[in-house]
Amino acid sequence: MSLPVLEVCFSPKLLPIYEVKRKIVVVIDVLRATSTICAALANGISKVIPVKDVEDCKVFSGDNYLLAGERHGKKIDGFEYGNSPYEYMNDAIKGKTLVLTTTNGTKSIEISKEADIIVAGAFLNLNILCKWLKKQNKDVLLLCAGWKDKFNMEDSLFAGAVVNKVKNNFNIEFDASIAAEQLYMSAKDDLIGTLKKASHYQRLERMGIEKDMEYCLQLNEADVLPILKDNALVLEN
Amino acid sequence: MSLPVLEVCFSPKLLPIYEVKRKIVVVIDVLRATSTICAALANGISKVIPVKDVEDCKVFSGDNYLLAGERHGKKIDGFEYGNSPYEYMNDAIKGKTLVLTTTNGTKSIEISKEADIIVAGAFLNLNILCKWLKKQNKDVLLLCAGWKDKFNMEDSLFAGAVVNKVKNNFNIEFDASIAAEQLYMSAKDDLIGTLKKASHYQRLERMGIEKDMEYCLQLNEADVLPILKDNALVLEN
Repeated sequence: MSLPVLEVCFSPKLLPIYEVKRKIVVVIDVLRATSTICAALANGISKVIPVKDVEDCKVFSGDNYLLAGERHGKKIDGFEYGNSPYEYMNDAIKGKTLVLTTTNGTKSIEISKEADIIVAGAFLNLNILCKWLKKQNKDVLLLCAGWKDKFNMEDSLFAGAVVNKVKNNFNIEFDASIAAEQLYMSAKDDLIGTLKKASHYQRLERMGIEKDMEYCLQLNEADVLPILKDNALVLEN
Repeated sequence: MSLPVLEVCFSPKLLPIYEVKRKIVVVIDVLRATSTICAALANGISKVIPVKDVEDCKVFSGDNYLLAGERHGKKIDGFEYGNSPYEYMNDAIKGKTLVLTTTNGTKSIEISKEADIIVAGAFLNLNILCKWLKKQNKDVLLLCAGWKDKFNMEDSLFAGAVVNKVKNNFNIEFDASIAAEQLYMSAKDDLIGTLKKASHYQRLERMGIEKDMEYCLQLNEADVLPILKDNALVLEN
């Protein structure tokens, strides 16, 4: 029996080269959209509606909705919530619906809509994601959200971590997958040290949100699998 | 004095994200276009005219022109020469003009035309290229030709070798540059072994041109700098 194929796409801009129909797409935006989505669902948010544009968030009104998002790494003016996982670690958010728009992560979900299944990946849910992928027997594309369409380090390292964990169950013989795994293997004993050299980390560090980043690099701290159903990310049962 | 910026672009498809005006673009297609260009110029070809389409090659006729090229890794029907560096190691080619079209490499030259200066890079001319780059005091983009717009290993490793050699003279704080250098540092003691796992190497190996590939991975074997002048690559004086 031939194994399903797993490929890594280093930028949303490269997505058109890859066929996503009939595949699982894992959207990866470690700093911070997919980490925040994992944290929010793990802490009691009932669902996360990913929205591409700020204006489109505003159609969701009422007590049940929390409007949240960032542009260029900063909370959007007039929004109650930003893109920090720590904002969702309190009882007030339980059962609510998060309406989230971010620079890279929610855009990546939007452009993957032709896929059969879309899930969110981050270091926070590495194990549960990998276990689930191995059970599906379907082709997988790991889509790194990057930074404004450029390659970024943290998403690529996470893709490499996934390749490393699932490679016996997939055909991974593609250069981007091999490179991502190699990068992860070189960096895994000091993820924070490696990312401190990376540009997006430095950009966020200048904004004083280092605590967020340290949280986002922890393995399996929000052990849930967000899956897109009816245009909202919910917990996979 | 602030240092000039050096960035790495992993795919021609990502080129629109980068500004190339006023920059030096180093086009990299290690297997095999830029290696073959270096070998041809080092062995006496007077200039190489890179051409995007097969049909456009045919306007060059006469004894002075050698029509050469490949599509999907194979020599084009009706063309006398292919894309192997070994084809240009004989006296018959001396002084002639090579008209070359390839799947990825010549296309990358074409799309970089807005750059101030375009040069060709490969392991065969690593040292002379790096020495020259350090002297220019201009921003540099290392453009990996990839394989049909996908990330490929050999071009990215070469970009990493350049980053490693010139980094004291440039600002290289961008994730793609850092990742390319990290990949190169992990692989440099066994480039062939690393590339044997890579998909384009395997694709070419199946075509029986392993000897070409071993040649293309040698450092500084064709120690010349091809530079684009009047739409042809010639030796930089």
